[in-house]
Amino acid sequence: MGSAGLWQRQRAALHCLMPRLDFWFDFASTYSYPAAMRIAPLAQASGVAIRFRPFLLGPIFKAQGWDNSPFNVYEAKGRYMWRDLERLCAGLSLPFRKPDPFPQHSLLAARVALAVDERRRGDFSRAVFDAEFGEGKPINEPSVLDNLLRGLNLDPRDTMARAQSDEVKGALRAETEEAVRLGIFGAPAFVTGDSELFWGNDRLEPALAWAKRQG
Amino acid sequence: MGSAGLWQRQRAALHCLMPRLDFWFDFASTYSYPAAMRIAPLAQASGVAIRFRPFLLGPIFKAQGWDNSPFNVYEAKGRYMWRDLERLCAGLSLPFRKPDPFPQHSLLAARVALAVDERRRGDFSRAVFDAEFGEGKPINEPSVLDNLLRGLNLDPRDTMARAQSDEVKGALRAETEEAVRLGIFGAPAFVTGDSELFWGNDRLEPALAWAKRQG
Repeated sequence: MGSAGLWQRQRAALHCLMPRLDFWFDFASTYSYPAAMRIAPLAQASGVAIRFRPFLLGPIFKAQGWDNSPFNVYEAKGRYMWRDLERLCAGLSLPFRKPDPFPQHSLLAARVALAVDERRRGDFSRAVFDAEFGEGKPINEPSVLDNLLRGLNLDPRDTMARAQSDEVKGALRAETEEAVRLGIFGAPAFVTGDSELFWGNDRLEPALAWAKRQG
Repeated sequence: MGSAGLWQRQRAALHCLMPRLDFWFDFASTYSYPAAMRIAPLAQASGVAIRFRPFLLGPIFKAQGWDNSPFNVYEAKGRYMWRDLERLCAGLSLPFRKPDPFPQHSLLAARVALAVDERRRGDFSRAVFDAEFGEGKPINEPSVLDNLLRGLNLDPRDTMARAQSDEVKGALRAETEEAVRLGIFGAPAFVTGDSELFWGNDRLEPALAWAKRQG
C-alpha cells in the first residue's frame, strides 16, 4: 500500500471515531436548501462527521393526508415561508429564487444523489440545491442533473444509468422507510448517533452540539 | 404634577420612541411558553418595547381544517415536539410538565389577560405559562387564575368579572381577527412596527434584531 492509501485509511478510521450526524433532506424541501449550504463548515468546526441522506417527503406527506406541499395546502403558512426563506438567504448571502413550479419533482435528483459515490454526495447535493433555489432550474430535467455531474467531474452517463437501476430505486425506498422509522415527518431533519431527532434548519446547531456531546 | 408623575410621563414618551415588537401567543401553545419566558430580558437588552398580545389559535386552526392541535392530529410531529420542548426547557432551566389534557382550553386565560392592565399583562401571562407548563395546572379553572392574580397583587374579583364582560370578549375576538389580518397562522408569532412577521420561538432573536433596525 502506498502512503496515499495509508493516509486515506487513517482518515477513514478517524472518521469512524468521530461523532456522527445524519442530514436527512428532500431536494424539494425549501429549508433543506440553507441547511445543505451551512452544514459542512459547521460540522467540521464541531468535529462531527456528517452523512447526506436524501429521501422522499412525498410518501410521508401522503400518509398525513397531503397530496401537495403543506406550504401550498396552507396559504398563510406558505406566504410566510417564502418571505422567511428570502430573509434567511439574504442573511446568509445565499442566492434565492422561488422554484417554479413549487414543489419541484425531486425523485430523479434523489436517485442520482444515491448513485453518486458517498464521498461526493454532499458536493452533488449542494449543486442541486444551488441550481434549484439559487438559479431556479428544473431539477427533474436529466440535462440539468447531467450538467451538474459534469461540473463536479462525475461521469454523467454512468451515474445517470445507475440512478435508474433497481438497486438505487430500492435504496431510495429503503431510505424513505428508514426516515419514517426514525420518526422523521419533515425536512431537513438531523439524527445523531444515539438516534436523537432534530427538525428544521434552525435546529442544525443544537443537533451538532448534541452529536458532539454524545460522541 | 409631582415628580413621580413627570417621570412616568417621560418614561411613557421614551417607550413610544422605542422600536416595537408585538408578541402574539395562545396560552395553549407549547412553544409560546419558552418565548414568553425569554422575551422580556432579550427585548430590554435590545432596547425594543414589547406588547403581549394573547389571541386564540382555535378559530385559525378550524379554518385550516383542524379541530384539534396539529400536534395531536399529526402523531410523529407531536411526538417530536414534546421531546424538542423538553430539551429546550432543560437548556433554558425552565421547569416542564406536559399539560394533561393537551391542549389546555385557553379561552378564559386569554380573556383574563386582556382584563389585566396592559402594564401587568406580561407578568400575568408568564404566571399562566408557568402554572400550565411548569406545574401542570389546569388554566381553564377560575380558581387557578384567581390564585395567579392574587399572587401578582391584582384584584381577582374585579379582574375575573371584567374578563367576562362583553367588552373583553369582543376585544379578544378582535385580536384574533387582527392576527389573521397580519398573516399569523400559528404561535408564537412576532410582528414588528413595520409589519414584518416572524413565527416560532426560534425566531424571537431575529424578530428583535429586525425591530431594532427599523426602530
